[in-house]
Amino acid sequence: MRTIEWDEKREAVKLIDQTLLPGEYKIVECKTLEELIDAIKRLRVRGAPALGAAGAFGVVLACTNEKSKAQIEREVEMLKKARPTAVNLSYGVNRALNAAMSGKTTQEMKEYALEEAQRIADEDVAVNKKIGDYGSEFFEDGDVVLTHCNAGRLACVDWGTALGVIRTAIQKGKRIEVIACETRPLNQGSRITTWELLQDKIPVTLIADSMSAAVMREGKVNKVIVGADRVVKEGVINKIGTYMHAVVAKEHGIPFYVAAPLSSFDLKRSYKEVEIEERSAEELIFFAGKQIAPLDVKVYNPAFDFTPFELIAAVITEKGIYTKVSSF
Amino acid sequence: MRTIEWDEKREAVKLIDQTLLPGEYKIVECKTLEELIDAIKRLRVRGAPALGAAGAFGVVLACTNEKSKAQIEREVEMLKKARPTAVNLSYGVNRALNAAMSGKTTQEMKEYALEEAQRIADEDVAVNKKIGDYGSEFFEDGDVVLTHCNAGRLACVDWGTALGVIRTAIQKGKRIEVIACETRPLNQGSRITTWELLQDKIPVTLIADSMSAAVMREGKVNKVIVGADRVVKEGVINKIGTYMHAVVAKEHGIPFYVAAPLSSFDLKRSYKEVEIEERSAEELIFFAGKQIAPLDVKVYNPAFDFTPFELIAAVITEKGIYTKVSSF
Repeated sequence: MRTIEWDEKREAVKLIDQTLLPGEYKIVECKTLEELIDAIKRLRVRGAPALGAAGAFGVVLACTNEKSKAQIEREVEMLKKARPTAVNLSYGVNRALNAAMSGKTTQEMKEYALEEAQRIADEDVAVNKKIGDYGSEFFEDGDVVLTHCNAGRLACVDWGTALGVIRTAIQKGKRIEVIACETRPLNQGSRITTWELLQDKIPVTLIADSMSAAVMREGKVNKVIVGADRVVKEGVINKIGTYMHAVVAKEHGIPFYVAAPLSSFDLKRSYKEVEIEERSAEELIFFAGKQIAPLDVKVYNPAFDFTPFELIAAVITEKGIYTKVSSF
Repeated sequence: MRTIEWDEKREAVKLIDQTLLPGEYKIVECKTLEELIDAIKRLRVRGAPALGAAGAFGVVLACTNEKSKAQIEREVEMLKKARPTAVNLSYGVNRALNAAMSGKTTQEMKEYALEEAQRIADEDVAVNKKIGDYGSEFFEDGDVVLTHCNAGRLACVDWGTALGVIRTAIQKGKRIEVIACETRPLNQGSRITTWELLQDKIPVTLIADSMSAAVMREGKVNKVIVGADRVVKEGVINKIGTYMHAVVAKEHGIPFYVAAPLSSFDLKRSYKEVEIEERSAEELIFFAGKQIAPLDVKVYNPAFDFTPFELIAAVITEKGIYTKVSSF
């Protein structure tokens, strides 16, 4: 199944619980907006493009029980705030909400929201395939590509952005190997990226995040590709660690690519205006329930960082390439 | 107590089990060479200077049961190989072994080895205090200093190298804050560095390794100091991730210091000749017993990396400063 989809019969959003992978593959059902918001906050569904679809399906869940339009608008505000950094969540909510507003009854609003949400989900897959087409041109037979976090099928509705580019390049007959950084503190790299690549039989080697400079120095990597949570005026906001990989890639003359749909673009805004989500200290003090740091230690745990366009060879989108010197 | 010491009554090496911190503070006793080698391999005792003392005390344990000198030499070869990268282990073994060889009986050999081992342990503390004296001059009131892994009291017999410099600077009345990187995959930073700094009431903030570039960009750090496992002809071999921090420090114009005793120096050797210990894939596939990656994923897990002198402002030793342009 797709990462996230609507179950017509059950009138529910179904999603693959990404917090349980790779140990367990489980489908979670959200029948209420509250359940979906909880799933988003717990990262059962994550990844900017997937959050776009989640936001849209959330509007469908909100359209129940003969609510007034004002009430629905209030409720989906909470949904938009479930995670602040990726722009796609608001994008998905806004599109589905606009569609809903032309409905007269709650039932009609729900139908229109669902049509729009399905459209967003289908567009996401089509967009990723286009990103793959454009992006795959940058990759050559024999490349070893480092990636961080998960910008794959599970970060999207399907196919993936950064990993979608790799999938398309492989589909075109190029042999590509991936080095996946584990991506602390929540290990989306070790848990999800390696899992989805192995499912597709794409060769992947797992490393700790801090090894990226060393593997570059050792000549074990020749390209980097990551996704984006938000593309702003001066660069890209993405999973914490992205900026570190970009700096060390520059030091080693290795091109650093970002793959992102236009729905992640927010070019009128500066990175300084974007809220960088700070997550709980517990993510660094505990691991799998085991204490790994003193309980009273101060922790700084930003979920994202900012990488300026100067360090990025190209942002690969469904409409082509965006760089510091060539905008659309 | 010290990180590692000889228990006269029990005729055993006692050490703080560093794999259990911070959850549990437990003293482990090694009565045989085999037990000590096992403790070294499991990292119950780790850190280049502490391994120097461990190596020397290991020779004492080998001098039992009327063994021949040849047999003792054979046995301590195994000890030297317990961990290949830090030069101090061999250094400690060789010094204690040389001392032992002037004994006539096993009992005499044991006495001489013990005298030498105690000397190495005491010297380590004195050396660290001198490193602290030299190094503290580079640090100013108000500095926020990033460190990686643990080059503190627990990496040494006492006081510490990198953290010893910070301790001395604080003792001299400077207010210093530390940012500790958790240091994947074994989390010596989150488990040990934060613990020993909090014991001394030194302000410390824990971050994930990949956050170091972001905190530098945000202006939250103005110096870096780490230890060394081996100082070679072209630079420093230290815990994996050190090179990454050095590259991003350069990008942000932040001075990068290494603190290391001369017993870690091996200037005749190139980094290319030093075996970089590769540790088990399980360190990245499991965490605290929980599976966090597919069982069949390929893993690259080097325990150390190499940082060239070009990226190092100074190596701080007990005899003063060593840099690319000014050797002793």
